[in-house]
Amino acid sequence: MARIKKRRSQKSGLPPGTLVHIGEVKTPSTTMVLTCFGPDGLIERELTGSADLDTIDESYPVRWLNIYGVHDSELMAAVGRRFGLHPLVLEDILNTDQRPKVDAYDDYLFIVGQIYDVARQRDDLATDQISLIVGNGFVLTFQERRSGTFEPVRQRLRAEKSPLRRLGADYLAYALLDTIVDAYFSIIERLGDKCEALEEEILGKPKRDALQKAHQLKRELSLLRRTLWPMREVIGSLQRSQSQFFRDETRLYLRDIYDHTVHLLEQLEDLRDLLTGLLDIYLNSVSNRVNLEVRTLTLLTTVFMPAALVAGIFGMNFRSMPWLESPDGFWSALALMGSVAVALFAIFWSRRLFR
Amino acid sequence: MARIKKRRSQKSGLPPGTLVHIGEVKTPSTTMVLTCFGPDGLIERELTGSADLDTIDESYPVRWLNIYGVHDSELMAAVGRRFGLHPLVLEDILNTDQRPKVDAYDDYLFIVGQIYDVARQRDDLATDQISLIVGNGFVLTFQERRSGTFEPVRQRLRAEKSPLRRLGADYLAYALLDTIVDAYFSIIERLGDKCEALEEEILGKPKRDALQKAHQLKRELSLLRRTLWPMREVIGSLQRSQSQFFRDETRLYLRDIYDHTVHLLEQLEDLRDLLTGLLDIYLNSVSNRVNLEVRTLTLLTTVFMPAALVAGIFGMNFRSMPWLESPDGFWSALALMGSVAVALFAIFWSRRLFR
Amino acid sequence: MARIKKRRSQKSGLPPGTLVHIGEVKTPSTTMVLTCFGPDGLIERELTGSADLDTIDESYPVRWLNIYGVHDSELMAAVGRRFGLHPLVLEDILNTDQRPKVDAYDDYLFIVGQIYDVARQRDDLATDQISLIVGNGFVLTFQERRSGTFEPVRQRLRAEKSPLRRLGADYLAYALLDTIVDAYFSIIERLGDKCEALEEEILGKPKRDALQKAHQLKRELSLLRRTLWPMREVIGSLQRSQSQFFRDETRLYLRDIYDHTVHLLEQLEDLRDLLTGLLDIYLNSVSNRVNLEVRTLTLLTTVFMPAALVAGIFGMNFRSMPWLESPDGFWSALALMGSVAVALFAIFWSRRLFR
Amino acid sequence: MARIKKRRSQKSGLPPGTLVHIGEVKTPSTTMVLTCFGPDGLIERELTGSADLDTIDESYPVRWLNIYGVHDSELMAAVGRRFGLHPLVLEDILNTDQRPKVDAYDDYLFIVGQIYDVARQRDDLATDQISLIVGNGFVLTFQERRSGTFEPVRQRLRAEKSPLRRLGADYLAYALLDTIVDAYFSIIERLGDKCEALEEEILGKPKRDALQKAHQLKRELSLLRRTLWPMREVIGSLQRSQSQFFRDETRLYLRDIYDHTVHLLEQLEDLRDLLTGLLDIYLNSVSNRVNLEVRTLTLLTTVFMPAALVAGIFGMNFRSMPWLESPDGFWSALALMGSVAVALFAIFWSRRLFR
Amino acid sequence: MARIKKRRSQKSGLPPGTLVHIGEVKTPSTTMVLTCFGPDGLIERELTGSADLDTIDESYPVRWLNIYGVHDSELMAAVGRRFGLHPLVLEDILNTDQRPKVDAYDDYLFIVGQIYDVARQRDDLATDQISLIVGNGFVLTFQERRSGTFEPVRQRLRAEKSPLRRLGADYLAYALLDTIVDAYFSIIERLGDKCEALEEEILGKPKRDALQKAHQLKRELSLLRRTLWPMREVIGSLQRSQSQFFRDETRLYLRDIYDHTVHLLEQLEDLRDLLTGLLDIYLNSVSNRVNLEVRTLTLLTTVFMPAALVAGIFGMNFRSMPWLESPDGFWSALALMGSVAVALFAIFWSRRLFR
Repeated sequence: MARIKKRRSQKSGLPPGTLVHIGEVKTPSTTMVLTCFGPDGLIERELTGSADLDTIDESYPVRWLNIYGVHDSELMAAVGRRFGLHPLVLEDILNTDQRPKVDAYDDYLFIVGQIYDVARQRDDLATDQISLIVGNGFVLTFQERRSGTFEPVRQRLRAEKSPLRRLGADYLAYALLDTIVDAYFSIIERLGDKCEALEEEILGKPKRDALQKAHQLKRELSLLRRTLWPMREVIGSLQRSQSQFFRDETRLYLRDIYDHTVHLLEQLEDLRDLLTGLLDIYLNSVSNRVNLEVRTLTLLTTVFMPAALVAGIFGMNFRSMPWLESPDGFWSALALMGSVAVALFAIFWSRRLFR
Repeated sequence: MARIKKRRSQKSGLPPGTLVHIGEVKTPSTTMVLTCFGPDGLIERELTGSADLDTIDESYPVRWLNIYGVHDSELMAAVGRRFGLHPLVLEDILNTDQRPKVDAYDDYLFIVGQIYDVARQRDDLATDQISLIVGNGFVLTFQERRSGTFEPVRQRLRAEKSPLRRLGADYLAYALLDTIVDAYFSIIERLGDKCEALEEEILGKPKRDALQKAHQLKRELSLLRRTLWPMREVIGSLQRSQSQFFRDETRLYLRDIYDHTVHLLEQLEDLRDLLTGLLDIYLNSVSNRVNLEVRTLTLLTTVFMPAALVAGIFGMNFRSMPWLESPDGFWSALALMGSVAVALFAIFWSRRLFR
Repeated sequence: MARIKKRRSQKSGLPPGTLVHIGEVKTPSTTMVLTCFGPDGLIERELTGSADLDTIDESYPVRWLNIYGVHDSELMAAVGRRFGLHPLVLEDILNTDQRPKVDAYDDYLFIVGQIYDVARQRDDLATDQISLIVGNGFVLTFQERRSGTFEPVRQRLRAEKSPLRRLGADYLAYALLDTIVDAYFSIIERLGDKCEALEEEILGKPKRDALQKAHQLKRELSLLRRTLWPMREVIGSLQRSQSQFFRDETRLYLRDIYDHTVHLLEQLEDLRDLLTGLLDIYLNSVSNRVNLEVRTLTLLTTVFMPAALVAGIFGMNFRSMPWLESPDGFWSALALMGSVAVALFAIFWSRRLFR
Repeated sequence: MARIKKRRSQKSGLPPGTLVHIGEVKTPSTTMVLTCFGPDGLIERELTGSADLDTIDESYPVRWLNIYGVHDSELMAAVGRRFGLHPLVLEDILNTDQRPKVDAYDDYLFIVGQIYDVARQRDDLATDQISLIVGNGFVLTFQERRSGTFEPVRQRLRAEKSPLRRLGADYLAYALLDTIVDAYFSIIERLGDKCEALEEEILGKPKRDALQKAHQLKRELSLLRRTLWPMREVIGSLQRSQSQFFRDETRLYLRDIYDHTVHLLEQLEDLRDLLTGLLDIYLNSVSNRVNLEVRTLTLLTTVFMPAALVAGIFGMNFRSMPWLESPDGFWSALALMGSVAVALFAIFWSRRLFR
Repeated sequence: MARIKKRRSQKSGLPPGTLVHIGEVKTPSTTMVLTCFGPDGLIERELTGSADLDTIDESYPVRWLNIYGVHDSELMAAVGRRFGLHPLVLEDILNTDQRPKVDAYDDYLFIVGQIYDVARQRDDLATDQISLIVGNGFVLTFQERRSGTFEPVRQRLRAEKSPLRRLGADYLAYALLDTIVDAYFSIIERLGDKCEALEEEILGKPKRDALQKAHQLKRELSLLRRTLWPMREVIGSLQRSQSQFFRDETRLYLRDIYDHTVHLLEQLEDLRDLLTGLLDIYLNSVSNRVNLEVRTLTLLTTVFMPAALVAGIFGMNFRSMPWLESPDGFWSALALMGSVAVALFAIFWSRRLFR
């Protein structure tokens, strides 16, 4: 999961703005869906190639172009030319391990976010980069994997009386950011479930790999935190700064998402605290266990060693020894063994051992 | 207690401003109490439905509407319309796991706080959100649980010559905030008592679950701290900022509450320090205990092993062995056993073992 | 010492400005000493009740009223009326667990400090609050306990040519603050002595409660630090801010006290470092001790177990066994025992055990 | 690797600006390569001595002088005179253990960076200082070792239509900085590989020096971090500040490198987290191992000690003892031995030992 | 070394500006050396008493008065009167445990620094305070111990064409500060040597006091750090602030010293990291050692306990026992002993014990 991406060094020495896709190719082919809408109507259609880009109908107040699969650098270059994107923006869209950030350009804002994937077979977090460009009257979204993150927004758009249709490109961008942040809630709930399962295990009968599991969870929490912190900053700066691309009414809504990110980060902190406590309890239980074993050993030695000595003494071959001829000698010896053990035990007990 | 709230993810994808209650329903029905007052008089009455909202008498200088039970979204929407509240404000009132914050709107301030509940059977902290809206001449307070937090303020209002009646809506808001902060003192005293009980236990004879108790307390302290920090910031920002809703005289009083929150946070730090020290002492006591057990074992071995060897030697079946025939042989052997043990013990003692 | 004050919650729900004394009553009756002075002379007299407050002679350039015992709320209210103090100021003077702070009012500065008591039987720190009010031409000081903190200032005032007489109320306030900060030096020296005593104990032969002592010291250091930090801020802000109550010449002297507080905080840090190091050494010594015990045990087992086996072998009752009939058999067996032990010891030594 | 450089103290007491080379001499002789270019052409030639410095053709818009080997203080002084460098700049170029920084002078910017060397026999990081001076129309680069860091830039320059030729001295400086930052990616990938190898070892069967390896890696990470932090600041300040030496268009590109440094620092944090987790797991595994050994010991004692006691008892020489004469006595004794061991084992098992 | 200075509390209650020397008297008598110089010449002479102070020749552009031994409070007062020093400045010069700081007065800057002493018999750091006053045309330096710190500057001054003679009082002050900072390099190199020696010891065969040594080193590093941080700030603020006493050209040189202090602090951090790693390795080695001992014990028990049981069994006195009469019985018994031990050993080995 938190593997260091290896591909970066391949790009060393290339001129900046060279379009090389960095990251896993997660979608075989690229899909472009164009949604144009305004208060009066909405059309949705799929673009099939770079030629189609020139057929975008500019009469609708808002055009939203959503692209799945960003590894096709030629197509990306065409999109860049069509919307006047800076080469560095395109480069960042293709390098899919960007940190969340917002860069202001003259004609648009470039926002990078990261989402995490839940519904996967392998039990670890997979990240996917979402790039969002907001200009006057258009929104572009780029993603490598074909995820359903934006589906709820699309459905609200299809509703005829949806306020979304009225509220312009910046409100659409807000709605998209909102779904991105909302997606974190379920990820964190899932991690919370894992933490609780681990808590039960550790307070009950921990297996050998409990420590590793705890560290794995801790690293996943760090990973999320490291993505959420810049997300928080991105949204915070969008909300605070006077930008031509977000109107004041919309910025009020951004404050709401901002609160969500703060809330998410606090939940992460809660889970971290829980894990740290669990680790302490686990390590202490190992220590307690050693103590228990040593105590058993001491107890055994207390009971059997003195008895063995008594047996050894009466097993010596001296000619004249007391008790040997007596008919009760054997039983006296056994009694002696028992009483020595009891006496020792009493002494140790009074000194607070064995308790 | 510090469970991650599960409900949040249900809201993913809904448009912002959708009124969905998030959190436990703690009060079966909603109660609205309206208190209108001024220097000349006071009326108190219960409103029974959204229709009653239109009957509020605006002639009194201050109207205070207190609502218990915020899960009835339709009623909340009616309240929102009556007082011109922004949809996001209503949404935050219903999502009862908000972080303390203050949001400034054109016509009112929206303040969110959290209180904790003491008088409960289950031994952990239950939180409840208090939302407070201060406008010109009106104060709205929202709470899910019907707690008695605001009772003292209400009683002071009922006193005919109370300065509260004279001092306007902002002073009422201050008085309410003051009771909210005061409620923390008793919570922290209760945690302090628990800490002291744990201290006595650990310095005396700690039970096995002392560590878990300590971690539980630590988490409760973190939880409180995480709520108090933003409370402090909320009150600090109210006190500093030039707002039309708080007059300068009232801001002087806010500085006083601000000092209280700082004081509370320091008490939390004190308790944290105490707990950290206790944990160290506890863990060290486990370690000391292992040492004590091993020492006992070594002592036993020192005394009995050499003696057993002597017994074994005189138990060998060699034909010619010294002492065997002698009448004092047996006693000499016992003396030998004793002296070897004493000698070994002396050696170890001189080397600072067994001390 | 660092007990959480319990009394705070008694005040919940009372209106602000209600005068309730919070803290221990340390002085049975209240004493008020008035000192009026100027370049030309000085009178000192004791005021016996609230009526006397009106007899204060305003012709002297500086009036200093020092009050021991602040639990008499009626008298305090009278003082408040006489000097025009805000109700919140009086409340803070009576709540004797305030954090050091400075509050600016129109007619005076209100400064709260804390001192610690050394000359006491019980071995822990007792704190006492000193409240200081500086106005134009007057200084008020409030303290619960009758300590001698301000005695040196009083004596310097009595000297006829003392520069103190010339330099006005703000310089007097500075001189009083200076004695407060100076009092910390002896407290910290005393803690330093305790730390060194503990160091000697731990490096020599630590007793069982060394850990508890170290934690106690650590908490006392934290307590001091938590008081000194805001003291530093108080003095820093007095020194920096342009206030009508402190002239530029006096602020130069405040910078000097400020340096003292920084110095004190560094000494605290030094002691903390020392203690942390000591704790590490102590805990490691426990660990080393376990190792030493286990080593002794191993050594004993190495020497005696093989010998016991040899003895056991020659104690078997087989009819035909080697050596049994030989006259040197016994001695050969003993030699065998010795050589096995020596051989084992040599093996372990060569593998770096027992070293 | 992280050895403290010893040479610094040799310079104590010398006047500032004295040119003394500090650091390892890594290149026997000094090489100076001059590259002059503009949109219309490019010449590259090697300068052979200080006399050649005066033959630099100023007609090309950009002159880039790259110098390998900075230990020749006389030549450096000549370069300084030729380009009007401040004595302190020259001193810093020669002291090759500078921290990355940027100093603004009237006629040029002086930038210091550090690169690390991968392709070396010894398995640790070797650092080399790169000093960069950007003026109007000229760029100077200084390096002690002859590394190929700038080779890609040189090759892009040689391409006839390269945008580099058009974009001036500041863009060249950016391109050089870019290669410096890019070089870190491969270093961090290499450290990442080492960390993963160590992870496999520790989760499998750790060798004795695993701890040392982990600490070595941790120190290398700290070293990198300590270089990268100021690098980040250098680039951040170049990007933010309005300098005459970097045009606005170029500053956009600097923002890109800035993102790279942030990304690098996060990867370092990731690796640190990984290592910290590994260390915990390793230390815990040692602890677990002790527990396992003690358990084995306890088990052995449980089985053999009671049996030995039974044997000892029937080896006593009493005249009258039960079972001795019985033909099944021997077997009964053996059965007794077995059953005592089983009974003890059952007791301990039921008390959760041996599990 | 890091002992808390005891003398401070003696001054409690004295009026500010009272000249009491605090610290060790390190030089029996006071020496004052006056150096007057300008581009045209230089005279050096020793002043013998306070009367000589009035004979200072003001015609030279720069007068530098260097004073060793500051415990003579009367002489100090005379110096203060001669140069118009504020009483608090004199007080700070005499209290030789000041924190490094810079205080601006109308007619001069007052700078306090600390140096450490290397060439001493006792193996710990001794600190000495250097006070520096820079005015228009004069520099005063005060030091208790007669160290050679400023010797290199004096020698550069004596050279007839030295730029120092031309560059005025502020450049002289810079040169003196430079030697103070340079002195730290050798101190840190010495600590670095000690750390490396300790590293070798701990990775090899650590002695019992390794831990104490490491903590001693750590405290020395903290001590240095606590002095260097404010030194850095002092120089940073001199470099940044627009002061009439330092010209812009000289401030460029101050930036150079500033870089040195940053560099020194990083070296301290490096050493701290090294020590922390060493402590971990040392503590882990203790833990490993316990494990090794326990393993040996287990091994011994595995081999000898079962054999002893077999011997005990054949030593029982039953009338009818197998093997006893057989001529090979003895050897069979020995074989049995061996095989039980081998079998047990094999079992434990297969379960990964003893590896």
